[in-house]
Amino acid sequence: MARQERAIRTRRAILEAAGAVFDEYGYASTTIAMVLERADVTKGALYFHFPSKEALARAVLSEQVPFGAVPPQPCRLQEIVDMTFVVGQRLRDNALLRGSMRLAVDQETPSGVDHAEPFLQWARRLTELLEQAGAKGELLPTVRAAATVELLVGSFTGIQLMSRALTDRADLGERLAVMWSHILPSIAVPGLLPGLDTRADRGVRVLASLERAAS
Amino acid sequence: MARQERAIRTRRAILEAAGAVFDEYGYASTTIAMVLERADVTKGALYFHFPSKEALARAVLSEQVPFGAVPPQPCRLQEIVDMTFVVGQRLRDNALLRGSMRLAVDQETPSGVDHAEPFLQWARRLTELLEQAGAKGELLPTVRAAATVELLVGSFTGIQLMSRALTDRADLGERLAVMWSHILPSIAVPGLLPGLDTRADRGVRVLASLERAAS
Repeated sequence: MARQERAIRTRRAILEAAGAVFDEYGYASTTIAMVLERADVTKGALYFHFPSKEALARAVLSEQVPFGAVPPQPCRLQEIVDMTFVVGQRLRDNALLRGSMRLAVDQETPSGVDHAEPFLQWARRLTELLEQAGAKGELLPTVRAAATVELLVGSFTGIQLMSRALTDRADLGERLAVMWSHILPSIAVPGLLPGLDTRADRGVRVLASLERAAS
Repeated sequence: MARQERAIRTRRAILEAAGAVFDEYGYASTTIAMVLERADVTKGALYFHFPSKEALARAVLSEQVPFGAVPPQPCRLQEIVDMTFVVGQRLRDNALLRGSMRLAVDQETPSGVDHAEPFLQWARRLTELLEQAGAKGELLPTVRAAATVELLVGSFTGIQLMSRALTDRADLGERLAVMWSHILPSIAVPGLLPGLDTRADRGVRVLASLERAAS
């Protein structure tokens, strides 16, 4: 394995270990030693990639948006819907994503770590997609992209949090289906509504199609 | 002052101090000693009312719903709207409510404290109001009260959290106005929509009317 590839793998192993530890213990109680033990890498390797706990937390926080990668769709609104279901599904089986979400949401995360950053990154990504949806004529003329996007990010955050508190995220798909059934009619032109797939198992199906495409 | 009244005041002083300390430090870092110092009561008085930190946290968590008290309105949906704006406004100036919200939202709150309880309490209260709204003919026939209520509680939770992370809740009123502009059209019969007040300063105005009524 080339040196660069090995470095990328080591960095990823550290990030995944850090995400899992942050998810379980939160920012304040997490120590570099706990991450070292979980990642099974040397202290030198860890400090080479991340000079401090703050740096680790920032890196974990910046990993959220890639988890929202979905296949392109003729309808941009379907892609936005898909992102929410895919992230919801991945929250159930990916500890790095869960740790990143916990760091963003927990009030204990110190402001030096900039835990607001993932909210802004999601907002930028979704605004891009929503503006494309607008250019394709998918949106009602009353939609203001920035405000709608902030509503989606805020609602998603709270819905996954409530689902975690009540059912350990087992019902997150159903909750997202309810969210879309209430919000889409004030976003999409009416003709689009019957064709948009917002069923609770959408995330499972999109992830399966991604896996088929990769294999 | 009668003994009972004094006990009620002491209990309230302890709760308010505990809320403020939980808001600032979170569950894990809060100690009984910190609450004692903030409340300026004796150790005996505190333990008389709350035998443990868990008991304190549970009491703080159960204080949320009373902050949603609003004046009755001819239209029940307006009352539901008002609750969200009033709680949003009170989050900005009431540390007990903020501490209660932090305990409900932070993942570090131990499961023995039952931090899901406020979500369920809000859901019960809102379901009551939404069913009354249905009986008065305010709702579209497609509304399923339980699902809609869970959406509202989840969205509110995430929106206040995002507003805290980005602007220390300064823009929470605007964000709630956006939430309602997107969700009401899929809940209320169309004839009601123009008459519902969902402007960003609704919370300030409702609280002022409550204060006038009390004075």
